[in-house]
Amino acid sequence: MGSGQCDVEISRIAERVGQGIADHDAVLICGGGGGVMEAAARGASKAGGLVVGILPDDNDGNANRWVELPIVTGMGNARNAINVLTAHSIIAIAGGPGTLSEIALAIKVGTPVVGLRTWNPVIGGGRYAEPKFQAVASPKDAVQLALSLAKGRIAGS
Amino acid sequence: MGSGQCDVEISRIAERVGQGIADHDAVLICGGGGGVMEAAARGASKAGGLVVGILPDDNDGNANRWVELPIVTGMGNARNAINVLTAHSIIAIAGGPGTLSEIALAIKVGTPVVGLRTWNPVIGGGRYAEPKFQAVASPKDAVQLALSLAKGRIAGS
Amino acid sequence: MGSGQCDVEISRIAERVGQGIADHDAVLICGGGGGVMEAAARGASKAGGLVVGILPDDNDGNANRWVELPIVTGMGNARNAINVLTAHSIIAIAGGPGTLSEIALAIKVGTPVVGLRTWNPVIGGGRYAEPKFQAVASPKDAVQLALSLAKGRIAGS
Amino acid sequence: MGSGQCDVEISRIAERVGQGIADHDAVLICGGGGGVMEAAARGASKAGGLVVGILPDDNDGNANRWVELPIVTGMGNARNAINVLTAHSIIAIAGGPGTLSEIALAIKVGTPVVGLRTWNPVIGGGRYAEPKFQAVASPKDAVQLALSLAKGRIAGS
Repeated sequence: MGSGQCDVEISRIAERVGQGIADHDAVLICGGGGGVMEAAARGASKAGGLVVGILPDDNDGNANRWVELPIVTGMGNARNAINVLTAHSIIAIAGGPGTLSEIALAIKVGTPVVGLRTWNPVIGGGRYAEPKFQAVASPKDAVQLALSLAKGRIAGS
Repeated sequence: MGSGQCDVEISRIAERVGQGIADHDAVLICGGGGGVMEAAARGASKAGGLVVGILPDDNDGNANRWVELPIVTGMGNARNAINVLTAHSIIAIAGGPGTLSEIALAIKVGTPVVGLRTWNPVIGGGRYAEPKFQAVASPKDAVQLALSLAKGRIAGS
Repeated sequence: MGSGQCDVEISRIAERVGQGIADHDAVLICGGGGGVMEAAARGASKAGGLVVGILPDDNDGNANRWVELPIVTGMGNARNAINVLTAHSIIAIAGGPGTLSEIALAIKVGTPVVGLRTWNPVIGGGRYAEPKFQAVASPKDAVQLALSLAKGRIAGS
Repeated sequence: MGSGQCDVEISRIAERVGQGIADHDAVLICGGGGGVMEAAARGASKAGGLVVGILPDDNDGNANRWVELPIVTGMGNARNAINVLTAHSIIAIAGGPGTLSEIALAIKVGTPVVGLRTWNPVIGGGRYAEPKFQAVASPKDAVQLALSLAKGRIAGS
């Protein structure tokens, strides 16, 4: 998860995260747009992974080119609620208010969130205890923790 | 906007906000649940105002008793996206992650938010400039500012 | 319920239905668009009734002028699912595939449908027994039956 | 598309359709439930295809066992609107009112529908001209026509 626009540094971080997800044979689910979403999708796709894009529009014209499987919701930001229910765990990278809404929704429905240069000081600043939200320092740590949390949920379901 | 459970002090604040909205002949739109939503709805209803509840469930069995017009979405948290598009301005009171998601969505779509004992230190802490999010100190100030912001949007549309 | 475009005869029928709903102090819930929706809204509004429009767009710019309370879903046709959950009973007038989808969804979720010059030969043609779908011949009959069915649901809930 | 319960004959037809979709390296998108959805998913999965289930619930507990990629919408029947926007073409098999709502929504948004023992006499009975809805007689014909229609849309987009 992350915003539709980002600088080069964040883009590199997101691409590494996407690559790591694919390297571990996990499916990347993203919002299908530009910025962080596109960088993560590019990383996962180049590493041979499946990229799902849950799109806000009623067509796939704005999906980034790395989305292999577009889910066309036609529901705008309401699709954020689908993202957090569908993912087994979430990695939030930087991001604006849309990303913040997804972090908050994920916490509400119990999907674990790993934060990388994102809103974590805010969310982690006392209001929520782990393991709902955990901040990490590197793409590698983010992937490892997110996959571990996802496996825990699948095993426990 | 606010969470489905709250203490007595927050409940009183929410009720005063609801009363203020109705006193100014505005429609109260809320999530239709308990806690802050119920207190605000009670305040508005007792003052003779119209209370709309945009419900997450697929029936109105859990709507609070003050909701006169239930909108039954059957969409869970995705209905938060409807709330922020429908309201002309928002007053956020206290609240948990659901309320935070609505504040963030409102900022994203451009609906002005007035905060009362809520996430404002977080949101207002430098990331967002006014007038997207403004914190106030009293129910009266919240109602005045929210109605002023709403009128500005209606006039400008 | 009905399509966004209609001829003069259907428009007159829809307006009479809207007027009848308001005359009986019921709330008119419609999709907020043109055609059948606008004619029914006009009838209800002129008779002093409350008109709710559950809009597909992410703003109220396309709502017809008789909608007093627009619910802005931003969800396109997915809002049809909200319409049929929110209404206590439905009057379907003429209409295209959107109306057919609402009739079908209403039958699925158990909201009774009264048909006026609509898909009834199709739906009523053996597959569904009453009282899920009943065809009537006049606006007056439609309003009477729909209100009776709505009251039955409210009393039984 | 088809209902959550079906008899043995319809189940066999649906399974052959799913198998045919996978044999042609296409992705099967379904509602993820039982009946027609499960039979089609089984056919596709056994033939090595990818099965996507767009689920109505807010968890994947009710997804059939052949769904490899569950999209958890938490939106009930509103997810039908996602199904018809996401699929490049649709094969409707038998089915109840939910399936009828999807046929109608597909026609509205322009997704071509191939019907197999479904509502086609109703829909095809004069109101809609091809190629929006076409009835066929066998699973093989359904797959061929649906893939041809899907390819036409992808090429034309």
